Amino acid sequence: MVTTDPDLDDGTPESDLAVVRSTTTRPIEEVAADLGLTPDDVEPRGEGVAKLTLDAVRSATADATDGTTVLVTGMTPTPKGEGKTVTTVGLGQALAALGESTTVAVREPSLGPVFGIKGGAAGGGYSQVLPMEAINLHFTGDIHALTAAHDLLAATLDNHLHQGNDEEVDVRRIHWPRALDVNDRALRETVVGLGGPARGVPREDEFVITAASELMAVLGLASDLEDLKSRIGRIVLAEDADGDPVTPTDLDVTGAVAALLRDAFRPNLVQTVEGVPALVHGGPFANIAHGTNTLVADRVGASLSEYLVTEAGFGADLGAEKFAHIVAREGIVPDVAVVVATVRGAKRHGLEMWPTDFDALADPDPEAVRAGVDNVRRHVEIVESFGVPAVVGINVFPDDTEAELAALEDALVDDGIAVARSTAYSDGGEGATDLAERVRNLAGTGEFTPLYDVDEPVEAKIETVAREVYGADDVEYVDGARDDVDRLEEWGHGDLPVCLSKTPYSFSDDASLTGVPEDWTLTVREVTPSAGAGFLVVKTADVMTMPGLPAEPAAEEIDIDADGDISGLF
Amino acid sequence: MVTTDPDLDDGTPESDLAVVRSTTTRPIEEVAADLGLTPDDVEPRGEGVAKLTLDAVRSATADATDGTTVLVTGMTPTPKGEGKTVTTVGLGQALAALGESTTVAVREPSLGPVFGIKGGAAGGGYSQVLPMEAINLHFTGDIHALTAAHDLLAATLDNHLHQGNDEEVDVRRIHWPRALDVNDRALRETVVGLGGPARGVPREDEFVITAASELMAVLGLASDLEDLKSRIGRIVLAEDADGDPVTPTDLDVTGAVAALLRDAFRPNLVQTVEGVPALVHGGPFANIAHGTNTLVADRVGASLSEYLVTEAGFGADLGAEKFAHIVAREGIVPDVAVVVATVRGAKRHGLEMWPTDFDALADPDPEAVRAGVDNVRRHVEIVESFGVPAVVGINVFPDDTEAELAALEDALVDDGIAVARSTAYSDGGEGATDLAERVRNLAGTGEFTPLYDVDEPVEAKIETVAREVYGADDVEYVDGARDDVDRLEEWGHGDLPVCLSKTPYSFSDDASLTGVPEDWTLTVREVTPSAGAGFLVVKTADVMTMPGLPAEPAAEEIDIDADGDISGLF
Repeated sequence: MVTTDPDLDDGTPESDLAVVRSTTTRPIEEVAADLGLTPDDVEPRGEGVAKLTLDAVRSATADATDGTTVLVTGMTPTPKGEGKTVTTVGLGQALAALGESTTVAVREPSLGPVFGIKGGAAGGGYSQVLPMEAINLHFTGDIHALTAAHDLLAATLDNHLHQGNDEEVDVRRIHWPRALDVNDRALRETVVGLGGPARGVPREDEFVITAASELMAVLGLASDLEDLKSRIGRIVLAEDADGDPVTPTDLDVTGAVAALLRDAFRPNLVQTVEGVPALVHGGPFANIAHGTNTLVADRVGASLSEYLVTEAGFGADLGAEKFAHIVAREGIVPDVAVVVATVRGAKRHGLEMWPTDFDALADPDPEAVRAGVDNVRRHVEIVESFGVPAVVGINVFPDDTEAELAALEDALVDDGIAVARSTAYSDGGEGATDLAERVRNLAGTGEFTPLYDVDEPVEAKIETVAREVYGADDVEYVDGARDDVDRLEEWGHGDLPVCLSKTPYSFSDDASLTGVPEDWTLTVREVTPSAGAGFLVVKTADVMTMPGLPAEPAAEEIDIDADGDISGLF
Repeated sequence: MVTTDPDLDDGTPESDLAVVRSTTTRPIEEVAADLGLTPDDVEPRGEGVAKLTLDAVRSATADATDGTTVLVTGMTPTPKGEGKTVTTVGLGQALAALGESTTVAVREPSLGPVFGIKGGAAGGGYSQVLPMEAINLHFTGDIHALTAAHDLLAATLDNHLHQGNDEEVDVRRIHWPRALDVNDRALRETVVGLGGPARGVPREDEFVITAASELMAVLGLASDLEDLKSRIGRIVLAEDADGDPVTPTDLDVTGAVAALLRDAFRPNLVQTVEGVPALVHGGPFANIAHGTNTLVADRVGASLSEYLVTEAGFGADLGAEKFAHIVAREGIVPDVAVVVATVRGAKRHGLEMWPTDFDALADPDPEAVRAGVDNVRRHVEIVESFGVPAVVGINVFPDDTEAELAALEDALVDDGIAVARSTAYSDGGEGATDLAERVRNLAGTGEFTPLYDVDEPVEAKIETVAREVYGADDVEYVDGARDDVDRLEEWGHGDLPVCLSKTPYSFSDDASLTGVPEDWTLTVREVTPSAGAGFLVVKTADVMTMPGLPAEPAAEEIDIDADGDISGLF
């Protein structure tokens, strides 16, 4: 059984490590048995980590899923996050403690942020997934496999140019960047192929962090290996002299790229601090991609347990909307949603602050919290507009005052919204029992319906998201974005769902607009195909796809001793 | 037990897969037990693959090694290779069949070549290491960990420039490239940091394949995690305004880089086709680095079994020399060596052919083979000059005629050189029984002595290798190479061994000179520090550290089916 020392945690990041060190985890085969999996269904990958076998995945996903899918989404976040992962893990632990067989599904952390800005990417305190060090460093190699596969595609494309360019690739219209799992701003804009004819064809290039690779989204949405191959083959790498797409199929490299992703396709099984099964698998961006763990992990979890608790990125305007229009149509439908809200988050909207003004949020201000509740309410409405019942989970921070918590809670209750506090960070599953009971009561009381049909014209789909989800009055196309749409429809990609890339810090496309902005127009600047992933990326601003390191990177604090013990990961 | 179908193999690459598919491997815990390791000493990483635990490594390497170390080296090779890995694996299998507990140690294959020019990198036929697909694709992620660690160093350096450059790094004197495990010529010369002040500082940059990273050599020579950290901290990344070295220690990133390599430091245990324990670990270049599997794998193998059979890159002039002067001083001394020779290899020297003229080598020509024997003889002399007894292992190819084989064999026997044929590719260990018996008889009959002492001046060490190993008459320094030496001695690195980078296709620095070239001068063009690895790289020509893809990459033939079976890897 799992044992932890309840006195260790004081709510600080430093204490996360103490929790990790004091927790005795269950053998992974025992965790697998909770899901009805035998030792033959899991392949150990270091202590407390296993990959499901392909047979186990195929068997679990052969039929429609039976379990209840709980989608954890949130209010408009601050850059520090409102604790969705902690709430996801805590809720899973609470449901398990209530006797429901439960699987938690979250994204895999990227190495880049681990060495950049401090912060574990796998929950925290008594609501995190373990083993923390392994999950944060390499894990089972999925992201490295994606890097290798991504860069094989890039190398093949440049080799094609070098070897004669039979496909007549236009070097000015290459859309496939290179990828590395590192925060490295110097790679945002590069020139490659310099140094003469032995060193390729000179051209402009860019690197993205691997999480931003379309292959990450491809892996995240593939239902099986055949589907994975089909998706890879459809990726638009570049355009030829006639402006037609050049794909991995054209370059004969689809099979090799898929072969590199064979093991990465199989979900990773670990456990929470309280020993609840957790699938940690995939990690796409939540703006240029759909921002949740893999479809296959969700389908396995919902098939093998009564409850699947899964998380989507940013607020409901981004994560839940994309889950509804991109993920759900691939075979996993949310039965109930948790909208995570915090005193800090509400206060920011009440005070109409710029999202990074953390210091200004330190003073208790129940009135400001109350004034910010409309933001939370609007996220609940978005979830409900999909026919999904919602409960607000208030993620309690140590510095929150009772007056502020009550202000948030009471305002929501007054509106007839289901709400429960969660102290899952400090108390584990026990801190999310109320939330779990409300989730259980609401699950299945709605009927999921997307807001648009994929057969509608591209502009109609964009307009639906802009007006009905974001609350925009209108949509404006600039910089040739309308031509982009025409071209994508010509290429036969008009029937894909849209994936809007927008700031997460406002419902609008302007991060400074708090609460529920009114009287504004969404500006569409570019529409590009993620034809392999299966959606059209609609950009409302430049998106940062390669983070940089800060002046004092977290890497400076990280160390390892002679016994292999790593310090400074928090 | 291991079972294979003896009729499957016809000596062609295509038949390798048939061998793989028909072999039933032993559970990896059973293989570990051959080395006296318990299931607790190994951490499974997929079927037939395990990483040794750090405790097992420390325990095995705590004392001096007892086992006999057999170093497999070779004659001057052709670019197709003379079958050193096949001979290494086959010899290990033969020793095991003779009742000697044996470990085989070979390098980890890099992904780049897998998708470039066809060819398995883990032996072949009935003398290969398994599981072939896993070993060739990602394996346990060691090389990916090195890529991540390498590029974290690069990102930290560019971030240092961007954040104010306190160390006053001279952007014109940055020696640390970026790394990717891919064949990608377009990355040989790049410009990074373009696009304005949010995107770093513009500068010239280059990418190397990960196997060419100094970190690969660091990992290959580190004796424990403390030593790994010390070596990382000493790497010369760049020079500052005063021309002094800038190291990872200066950038506070040593601990983070070491943390990324924690698991990569632990050797990987697999097995041969005949179920003999094999450690597949590390894979540094054999020209700019020392070209053999990790020191820690060798030490574990020699500690836990009676015989360790390990392989060094290229011919004895490169691989065995570097083993003697770089690896041996870290604690593993060869007791006997096998010089692998082939009819094809000897014929090339007899015909004085350019190394890639394979077609001209197809016709049987015993006289040419006899004329080429002096090359083999000279490699034997090099090995013996270190006090290591040598036996020539003739790796028999299906097309070799008996007249050619006899010509090679007889000429060596006439000179009093021990020689044995090996048909390990087709016959497994049984095909290397004669070789194993000769190895057993010769082992320990010499006394290992390096040719130079590290305390000698740098130029004296270079001269010793040039004259006594390569057979040069003289050494010429051009392009400021003598200034390089002065600077390295100033930096305090003068007492490191030298690692000469030279064409593998001739004893000389001119690939067209066959046999045993006479009356020639070695040209030294540049001397650079691999201060972390612990040697000075002496370059006699430009070294290709980033391969390119051919016109028809092997990737085009690779595919995966719905069941996850991969085809085309051979």
